[in-house]
Amino acid sequence: MKISELSRRSGVSIATIKYYLREGLLPPGEHTARNQAEYPESTLRRLRLARTLIAVGGLSIAATGKVLRAMDEPVTIFRTLGLAHYALSSPFPDEAHEDVDEQFYAEARALVKAAGWTIVGDTPYIASLAAGHKALADIGLNWSAQDLLPYAKLAHAAARLDFDQDAGIEDRIDIAERAIVRTVLLEPVLATLRRLAQEHEAAQRYQSTGQAADGGGSE
Amino acid sequence: MKISELSRRSGVSIATIKYYLREGLLPPGEHTARNQAEYPESTLRRLRLARTLIAVGGLSIAATGKVLRAMDEPVTIFRTLGLAHYALSSPFPDEAHEDVDEQFYAEARALVKAAGWTIVGDTPYIASLAAGHKALADIGLNWSAQDLLPYAKLAHAAARLDFDQDAGIEDRIDIAERAIVRTVLLEPVLATLRRLAQEHEAAQRYQSTGQAADGGGSE
Repeated sequence: MKISELSRRSGVSIATIKYYLREGLLPPGEHTARNQAEYPESTLRRLRLARTLIAVGGLSIAATGKVLRAMDEPVTIFRTLGLAHYALSSPFPDEAHEDVDEQFYAEARALVKAAGWTIVGDTPYIASLAAGHKALADIGLNWSAQDLLPYAKLAHAAARLDFDQDAGIEDRIDIAERAIVRTVLLEPVLATLRRLAQEHEAAQRYQSTGQAADGGGSE
Repeated sequence: MKISELSRRSGVSIATIKYYLREGLLPPGEHTARNQAEYPESTLRRLRLARTLIAVGGLSIAATGKVLRAMDEPVTIFRTLGLAHYALSSPFPDEAHEDVDEQFYAEARALVKAAGWTIVGDTPYIASLAAGHKALADIGLNWSAQDLLPYAKLAHAAARLDFDQDAGIEDRIDIAERAIVRTVLLEPVLATLRRLAQEHEAAQRYQSTGQAADGGGSE
Protein backbone atom coordinates (compact mmCIF):
# COMPACT_ATOMS: atom_id res chain seq x y z
CA MET A 1 0.00 0.00 0.00
CA LYS A 2 1.04 3.63 -0.41
CA ILE A 3 1.92 5.90 2.50
CA SER A 4 -1.48 7.62 2.14
CA GLU A 5 -3.27 4.32 2.75
CA LEU A 6 -0.92 3.54 5.65
CA SER A 7 -1.96 6.89 7.13
CA ARG A 8 -5.67 6.38 6.50
CA ARG A 9 -5.78 2.88 7.96
CA SER A 10 -3.65 3.70 11.02
CA GLY A 11 -4.96 7.18 11.77
CA VAL A 12 -1.36 8.38 11.97
CA SER A 13 -0.48 11.47 9.90
CA ILE A 14 1.81 11.15 6.87
CA ALA A 15 4.27 13.56 8.50
CA THR A 16 4.50 11.33 11.59
CA ILE A 17 4.90 8.19 9.46
CA LYS A 18 7.76 9.87 7.57
CA TYR A 19 9.34 10.78 10.90
CA TYR A 20 9.09 7.17 12.11
CA LEU A 21 10.64 5.98 8.80
CA ARG A 22 13.56 8.41 9.23
CA GLU A 23 14.06 7.23 12.84
CA GLY A 24 14.10 3.61 11.72
CA LEU A 25 10.95 2.58 13.61
CA LEU A 26 9.49 1.25 10.35
CA PRO A 27 11.29 -0.62 7.56
CA PRO A 28 11.69 1.43 4.36
CA GLY A 29 9.11 0.73 1.65
CA GLU A 30 9.87 -0.63 -1.79
CA HIS A 31 10.36 2.21 -4.25
CA THR A 32 8.04 1.80 -7.21
CA ALA A 33 8.37 5.21 -8.83
CA ARG A 34 9.97 8.54 -8.14
CA ASN A 35 8.74 9.63 -4.66
CA GLN A 36 6.46 6.60 -4.48
CA ALA A 37 6.93 3.63 -2.19
CA GLU A 38 4.89 0.52 -1.47
CA TYR A 39 4.52 -0.84 2.05
CA PRO A 40 3.40 -4.36 3.01
CA GLU A 41 0.62 -5.15 5.49
CA SER A 42 3.28 -5.89 8.13
CA THR A 43 4.34 -2.23 8.11
CA LEU A 44 0.80 -1.18 9.06
CA ARG A 45 0.88 -3.58 11.98
CA ARG A 46 4.32 -2.32 13.04
CA LEU A 47 3.09 1.28 12.75
CA ARG A 48 0.10 0.62 15.00
CA LEU A 49 2.39 -0.99 17.57
CA ALA A 50 4.86 1.92 17.46
CA ARG A 51 2.00 4.42 17.82
CA THR A 52 0.58 2.60 20.83
CA LEU A 53 3.93 2.33 22.60
CA ILE A 54 4.55 6.06 22.10
CA ALA A 55 1.09 7.59 22.57
CA VAL A 56 -0.31 5.33 25.28
CA GLY A 57 2.76 3.74 26.83
CA GLY A 58 4.58 7.06 26.87
CA LEU A 59 7.75 5.43 25.48
CA SER A 60 10.35 7.62 23.80
CA ILE A 61 11.19 7.20 20.12
CA ALA A 62 14.51 5.66 21.16
CA ALA A 63 12.89 3.17 23.57
CA THR A 64 10.26 2.26 20.98
CA GLY A 65 13.00 1.62 18.42
CA LYS A 66 14.76 -0.69 20.89
CA VAL A 67 11.57 -2.70 21.51
CA LEU A 68 10.80 -3.02 17.80
CA ARG A 69 14.36 -4.01 16.90
CA ALA A 70 14.31 -6.65 19.66
CA MET A 71 11.30 -8.19 17.94
CA ASP A 72 13.15 -8.33 14.63
CA GLU A 73 16.05 -10.36 15.96
CA PRO A 74 15.88 -13.97 14.77
CA VAL A 75 15.94 -15.61 18.19
CA THR A 76 13.57 -17.73 20.28
CA ILE A 77 10.26 -16.56 21.72
CA PHE A 78 11.77 -16.50 25.18
CA ARG A 79 14.74 -14.39 24.11
CA THR A 80 12.52 -12.04 22.09
CA LEU A 81 10.29 -11.47 25.11
CA GLY A 82 13.34 -10.77 27.27
CA LEU A 83 14.88 -8.31 24.80
CA ALA A 84 11.62 -6.44 24.36
CA HIS A 85 11.00 -6.38 28.11
CA TYR A 86 14.44 -5.04 28.91
CA ALA A 87 14.02 -2.30 26.31
CA LEU A 88 11.04 -0.84 28.20
CA SER A 89 11.74 1.97 30.59
CA SER A 90 11.68 1.40 34.35
CA PRO A 91 8.39 2.05 36.12
CA PHE A 92 10.39 4.43 38.36
CA PRO A 93 11.83 7.80 37.29
CA ASP A 94 15.63 7.91 36.91
CA GLU A 95 15.98 9.89 40.14
CA ALA A 96 14.51 7.04 42.18
CA HIS A 97 17.33 4.77 40.98
CA GLU A 98 20.04 6.95 42.52
CA ASP A 99 21.92 5.96 45.69
CA VAL A 100 20.10 2.67 46.22
CA ASP A 101 22.06 0.79 48.90
CA GLU A 102 22.84 -2.92 48.79
CA GLN A 103 20.34 -3.59 51.61
CA PHE A 104 17.50 -2.67 49.25
CA TYR A 105 18.85 -5.00 46.57
CA ALA A 106 18.95 -7.73 49.21
CA GLU A 107 15.26 -7.09 50.03
CA ALA A 108 14.42 -7.17 46.31
CA ARG A 109 16.20 -10.50 45.82
CA ALA A 110 14.55 -11.88 48.97
CA LEU A 111 11.14 -10.94 47.58
CA VAL A 112 11.80 -12.62 44.22
CA LYS A 113 12.92 -15.72 46.10
CA ALA A 114 9.91 -15.69 48.44
CA ALA A 115 7.62 -15.33 45.41
CA GLY A 116 9.22 -18.44 43.92
CA TRP A 117 10.25 -16.70 40.72
CA THR A 118 13.01 -17.99 38.47
CA ILE A 119 14.55 -14.97 36.78
CA VAL A 120 16.82 -15.80 33.85
CA GLY A 121 19.09 -13.21 32.27
CA ASP A 122 19.96 -9.65 33.23
CA THR A 123 16.59 -8.24 34.18
CA PRO A 124 16.66 -4.53 35.08
CA TYR A 125 13.66 -5.03 37.36
CA ILE A 126 15.56 -6.22 40.41
CA ALA A 127 17.10 -2.75 40.41
CA SER A 128 13.62 -1.21 39.99
CA LEU A 129 12.32 -3.23 42.91
CA ALA A 130 15.29 -2.14 45.03
CA ALA A 131 14.47 1.48 44.11
CA GLY A 132 10.93 0.83 45.30
CA HIS A 133 12.12 -0.52 48.65
CA LYS A 134 14.34 2.53 49.06
CA ALA A 135 11.52 4.93 48.17
CA LEU A 136 9.25 3.30 50.75
CA ALA A 137 11.99 3.46 53.39
CA ASP A 138 12.69 7.13 52.58
CA ILE A 139 9.11 8.02 53.48
CA GLY A 140 9.27 6.00 56.67
CA LEU A 141 7.65 2.79 55.44
CA ASN A 142 10.28 0.14 56.07
CA TRP A 143 8.59 -2.64 54.19
CA SER A 144 10.43 -5.92 54.08
CA ALA A 145 10.19 -8.48 51.30
CA GLN A 146 7.63 -10.25 53.50
CA ASP A 147 5.40 -7.16 53.59
CA LEU A 148 5.38 -6.91 49.80
CA LEU A 149 4.87 -10.65 49.24
CA PRO A 150 1.04 -10.46 49.15
CA TYR A 151 1.35 -7.85 46.37
CA ALA A 152 3.85 -10.06 44.53
CA LYS A 153 1.30 -12.88 44.58
CA LEU A 154 -1.33 -10.62 43.01
CA ALA A 155 1.18 -9.48 40.38
CA HIS A 156 1.93 -13.11 39.61
CA ALA A 157 -1.77 -13.84 39.16
CA ALA A 158 -1.94 -10.91 36.73
CA ALA A 159 1.06 -12.24 34.78
CA ARG A 160 -0.61 -15.63 34.50
CA LEU A 161 -3.76 -13.99 33.13
CA ASP A 162 -1.52 -12.13 30.65
CA PHE A 163 0.10 -15.24 29.19
CA ASP A 164 -3.01 -17.44 29.37
CA GLN A 165 -4.39 -15.36 26.51
CA ASP A 166 -1.66 -16.57 24.16
CA ALA A 167 -2.59 -20.24 24.42
CA GLY A 168 -2.55 -21.71 20.92
CA ILE A 169 -0.58 -18.89 19.29
CA GLU A 170 2.66 -20.15 17.77
CA ASP A 171 4.13 -17.26 15.81
CA ARG A 172 7.13 -15.77 17.59
CA ILE A 173 6.57 -12.17 16.49
CA ASP A 174 2.87 -12.43 17.23
CA ILE A 175 3.49 -13.66 20.78
CA ALA A 176 6.14 -11.01 21.42
CA GLU A 177 3.91 -8.26 20.05
CA ARG A 178 0.94 -9.31 22.17
CA ALA A 179 3.15 -9.59 25.27
CA ILE A 180 4.60 -6.11 24.82
CA VAL A 181 1.21 -4.54 24.14
CA ARG A 182 -0.20 -6.14 27.27
CA THR A 183 2.76 -5.15 29.42
CA VAL A 184 2.66 -1.54 28.27
CA LEU A 185 -1.10 -1.00 27.86
CA LEU A 186 -2.38 -2.97 30.80
CA GLU A 187 -0.01 -1.23 33.22
CA PRO A 188 -2.04 2.02 33.26
CA VAL A 189 -5.27 -0.01 33.07
CA LEU A 190 -4.28 -1.95 36.19
CA ALA A 191 -3.24 1.28 37.94
CA THR A 192 -6.62 2.79 37.04
CA LEU A 193 -8.49 -0.27 38.31
CA ARG A 194 -6.59 -0.14 41.58
CA ARG A 195 -7.49 3.52 42.06
CA LEU A 196 -11.17 2.82 41.39
CA ALA A 197 -11.04 -0.10 43.82
CA GLN A 198 -9.39 2.18 46.38
CA GLU A 199 -12.25 4.65 46.01
CA HIS A 200 -14.73 1.83 46.55
CA GLU A 201 -12.83 0.60 49.61
CA ALA A 202 -12.52 4.15 51.00
CA ALA A 203 -16.29 4.58 50.65
CA GLN A 204 -16.92 1.26 52.39
CA ARG A 205 -14.53 1.99 55.23
CA TYR A 206 -14.69 5.72 55.82
CA GLN A 207 -17.74 7.26 54.21
CA SER A 208 -20.09 6.96 57.16
CA THR A 209 -17.75 6.88 60.13
CA GLY A 210 -17.18 9.91 62.32
CA GLN A 211 -17.55 12.34 59.44
CA ALA A 212 -18.01 15.48 61.50
CA ALA A 213 -16.03 14.45 64.53
CA ASP A 214 -12.64 14.09 62.87
CA GLY A 215 -13.12 16.92 60.42
CA GLY A 216 -10.92 19.27 62.41
CA GLY A 217 -13.32 22.08 61.55
CA SER A 218 -16.70 22.71 60.00
CA GLU A 219 -17.68 24.00 56.59
CA MET B 1 14.02 23.64 63.49
CA LYS B 2 15.99 25.81 61.07
CA ILE B 3 16.01 25.29 57.33
CA SER B 4 19.49 23.73 57.57
CA GLU B 5 18.17 21.01 59.89
CA LEU B 6 15.15 20.51 57.62
CA SER B 7 17.62 19.93 54.78
CA ARG B 8 19.87 17.62 56.76
CA ARG B 9 17.04 15.46 58.08
CA SER B 10 15.20 15.22 54.75
CA GLY B 11 18.18 14.97 52.43
CA VAL B 12 16.63 17.73 50.31
CA SER B 13 18.88 20.67 49.44
CA ILE B 14 18.22 24.11 50.96
CA ALA B 15 17.73 25.56 47.46
CA THR B 16 15.01 22.98 46.71
CA ILE B 17 13.31 23.60 50.07
CA LYS B 18 13.27 27.35 49.33
CA TYR B 19 11.75 26.60 45.93
CA TYR B 20 9.03 24.45 47.52
CA LEU B 21 8.34 27.25 50.04
CA ARG B 22 7.96 29.79 47.21
CA GLU B 23 5.62 27.42 45.31
CA GLY B 24 3.47 26.98 48.42
CA LEU B 25 4.17 23.26 48.84
CA LEU B 26 5.30 23.93 52.41
CA PRO B 27 3.80 26.34 54.95
CA PRO B 28 6.04 29.35 55.69
CA GLY B 29 8.12 29.09 58.86
CA GLU B 30 7.86 31.38 61.85
CA HIS B 31 10.32 34.24 61.51
CA THR B 32 12.55 34.42 64.56
CA ALA B 33 15.22 36.80 63.35
CA ARG B 34 16.25 38.55 60.15
CA ASN B 35 16.62 35.81 57.52
CA GLN B 36 15.93 33.13 60.12
CA ALA B 37 12.81 31.01 60.34
CA GLU B 38 11.74 28.11 62.53
CA TYR B 39 9.85 25.14 61.12
CA PRO B 40 7.83 22.60 63.11
CA GLU B 41 8.25 18.81 62.84
CA SER B 42 5.14 18.73 60.62
CA THR B 43 6.98 20.67 57.92
CA LEU B 44 9.66 17.96 57.77
CA ARG B 45 6.96 15.35 57.29
CA ARG B 46 5.27 17.43 54.61
CA LEU B 47 8.63 17.98 52.89
CA ARG B 48 9.32 14.24 52.77
CA LEU B 49 5.90 13.63 51.28
CA ALA B 50 6.35 16.37 48.66
CA ARG B 51 9.78 14.99 47.76
CA THR B 52 8.43 11.46 47.34
CA LEU B 53 5.50 12.54 45.18
CA ILE B 54 7.83 14.51 42.90
CA ALA B 55 10.94 12.32 42.74
CA VAL B 56 9.37 8.88 42.84
CA GLY B 57 5.78 9.45 41.78
CA GLY B 58 6.87 11.77 38.98
CA LEU B 59 4.18 14.31 39.94
CA SER B 60 4.58 17.92 38.79
CA ILE B 61 4.99 20.74 41.30
CA ALA B 62 1.43 21.84 40.48
CA ALA B 63 -0.04 18.36 40.99
CA THR B 64 1.91 17.92 44.22
CA GLY B 65 0.55 21.26 45.47
CA LYS B 66 -3.00 20.11 44.69
CA VAL B 67 -2.53 16.85 46.63
CA LEU B 68 -1.00 18.62 49.63
CA ARG B 69 -3.68 21.32 49.72
CA ALA B 70 -6.38 18.63 49.54
CA MET B 71 -4.92 17.17 52.71
CA ASP B 72 -5.09 20.53 54.45
CA GLU B 73 -8.82 21.02 53.88
CA PRO B 74 -10.78 20.48 57.08
CA VAL B 75 -13.09 17.78 55.76
CA THR B 76 -13.71 14.11 56.52
CA ILE B 77 -11.26 11.26 55.91
CA PHE B 78 -13.36 10.08 53.00
CA ARG B 79 -13.47 13.51 51.37
CA THR B 80 -9.73 14.06 51.96
CA LEU B 81 -8.93 10.76 50.28
CA GLY B 82 -11.13 11.68 47.32
CA LEU B 83 -9.60 15.15 46.91
CA ALA B 84 -6.07 13.80 47.08
CA HIS B 85 -6.91 10.97 44.69
CA TYR B 86 -8.47 13.25 42.12
CA ALA B 87 -5.44 15.56 42.26
CA LEU B 88 -3.16 12.77 41.03
CA SER B 89 -2.48 12.62 37.32
CA SER B 90 -4.10 9.96 35.15
CA PRO B 91 -2.13 6.75 34.63
CA PHE B 92 -2.54 7.47 30.89
CA PRO B 93 -0.79 10.25 28.95
CA ASP B 94 -3.03 13.14 27.86
CA GLU B 95 -3.00 11.95 24.26
CA ALA B 96 -4.69 8.68 25.19
CA HIS B 97 -7.67 10.65 26.54
CA GLU B 98 -8.44 12.23 23.15
CA ASP B 99 -11.40 11.13 21.01
CA VAL B 100 -12.66 8.47 23.40
CA ASP B 101 -16.10 7.44 22.13
CA GLU B 102 -19.12 6.83 24.33
CA GLN B 103 -18.91 3.06 23.68
CA PHE B 104 -15.65 2.94 25.65
CA TYR B 105 -17.22 4.84 28.55
CA ALA B 106 -20.04 2.30 28.48
CA GLU B 107 -17.50 -0.55 28.74
CA ALA B 108 -15.76 1.26 31.61
CA ARG B 109 -19.03 1.70 33.51
CA ALA B 110 -19.97 -1.93 32.81
CA LEU B 111 -16.66 -3.06 34.29
CA VAL B 112 -17.11 -0.98 37.45
CA LYS B 113 -20.58 -2.46 37.82
CA ALA B 114 -19.41 -6.03 37.20
CA ALA B 115 -16.67 -5.51 39.80
CA GLY B 116 -19.34 -4.46 42.31
CA TRP B 117 -17.74 -1.12 43.02
CA THR B 118 -19.62 1.81 44.46
CA ILE B 119 -17.99 4.97 43.14
CA VAL B 120 -19.05 8.14 44.92
CA GLY B 121 -18.22 11.59 43.54
CA ASP B 122 -16.66 12.73 40.29
CA THR B 123 -13.82 10.28 39.87
CA PRO B 124 -11.63 10.96 36.83
CA TYR B 125 -10.79 7.26 36.61
CA ILE B 126 -13.87 6.18 34.66
CA ALA B 127 -12.47 8.38 31.87
CA SER B 128 -9.04 6.78 32.34
CA LEU B 129 -10.57 3.32 32.09
CA ALA B 130 -12.44 4.34 28.93
CA ALA B 131 -9.13 5.58 27.50
CA GLY B 132 -7.68 2.15 28.29
CA HIS B 133 -10.51 0.34 26.47
CA LYS B 134 -9.97 2.61 23.47
CA ALA B 135 -6.20 2.05 23.47
CA LEU B 136 -6.72 -1.72 23.52
CA ALA B 137 -9.26 -1.50 20.68
CA ASP B 138 -6.92 0.73 18.64
CA ILE B 139 -4.30 -2.02 18.64
CA GLY B 140 -6.86 -4.65 17.71
CA LEU B 141 -7.61 -6.03 21.19
CA ASN B 142 -11.32 -5.50 21.59
CA TRP B 143 -11.52 -6.36 25.24
CA SER B 144 -14.93 -6.11 26.83
CA ALA B 145 -15.60 -5.32 30.47
CA GLN B 146 -15.90 -9.08 30.97
CA ASP B 147 -12.37 -9.65 29.64
CA LEU B 148 -10.92 -7.14 32.09
CA LEU B 149 -12.96 -8.35 35.07
CA PRO B 150 -10.33 -10.86 36.29
CA TYR B 151 -7.81 -8.01 36.38
CA ALA B 152 -10.31 -5.81 38.25
CA LYS B 153 -10.62 -8.51 40.91
CA LEU B 154 -6.84 -8.56 41.39
CA ALA B 155 -6.81 -4.75 41.60
CA HIS B 156 -9.54 -4.94 44.24
CA ALA B 157 -7.49 -7.42 46.26
CA ALA B 158 -4.55 -4.99 46.08
CA ALA B 159 -6.74 -2.10 47.26
CA ARG B 160 -7.91 -4.19 50.23
CA LEU B 161 -4.28 -4.92 51.13
CA ASP B 162 -3.63 -1.17 50.89
CA PHE B 163 -6.31 -0.13 53.34
CA ASP B 164 -5.89 -3.09 55.69
CA GLN B 165 -2.61 -1.53 56.75
CA ASP B 166 -4.41 1.48 58.23
CA ALA B 167 -6.40 -0.54 60.75
CA GLY B 168 -6.25 1.28 64.08
CA ILE B 169 -5.06 4.61 62.70
CA GLU B 170 -7.51 7.42 63.48
CA ASP B 171 -5.82 10.66 62.45
CA ARG B 172 -7.31 12.05 59.24
CA ILE B 173 -4.11 13.55 57.85
CA ASP B 174 -2.17 10.44 58.77
CA ILE B 175 -4.60 8.17 56.93
CA ALA B 176 -4.70 10.45 53.88
CA GLU B 177 -0.91 10.70 53.80
CA ARG B 178 -0.44 6.95 54.02
CA ALA B 179 -3.09 6.36 51.35
CA ILE B 180 -1.48 8.78 48.90
CA VAL B 181 2.00 7.42 49.49
CA ARG B 182 0.75 3.90 48.86
CA THR B 183 -1.19 4.86 45.75
CA VAL B 184 1.74 6.73 44.24
CA LEU B 185 4.68 4.58 45.42
CA LEU B 186 3.16 1.15 45.11
CA GLU B 187 2.02 1.77 41.54
CA PRO B 188 5.54 1.43 40.09
CA VAL B 189 6.29 -1.32 42.63
CA LEU B 190 3.28 -3.30 41.41
CA ALA B 191 4.25 -2.67 37.78
CA THR B 192 7.77 -3.91 38.56
CA LEU B 193 6.44 -7.02 40.30
CA ARG B 194 4.20 -7.80 37.34
CA ARG B 195 7.15 -7.52 34.94
CA LEU B 196 9.26 -9.85 37.09
CA ALA B 197 6.36 -12.30 37.28
CA GLN B 198 6.00 -12.07 33.49
CA GLU B 199 9.66 -12.99 33.10
CA HIS B 200 9.15 -15.97 35.38
CA GLU B 201 6.06 -17.05 33.45
CA ALA B 202 7.83 -16.58 30.11
CA ALA B 203 10.67 -18.78 31.33
CA GLN B 204 8.20 -21.45 32.50
CA ARG B 205 6.21 -21.40 29.29
CA TYR B 206 8.69 -20.67 26.52
CA GLN B 207 12.24 -21.21 27.66
CA SER B 208 12.57 -24.84 26.61
CA THR B 209 9.99 -25.19 23.86
CA GLY B 210 10.97 -25.24 20.20
CA GLN B 211 13.85 -22.85 20.70
CA ALA B 212 15.57 -23.47 17.41
CA ALA B 213 12.52 -24.42 15.37
CA ASP B 214 10.68 -21.12 15.66
CA GLY B 215 13.73 -18.92 15.62
CA GLY B 216 13.19 -17.93 12.02
CA GLY B 217 16.94 -18.11 11.55
CA SER B 218 20.00 -19.39 13.29
CA GLU B 219 22.74 -17.59 15.21
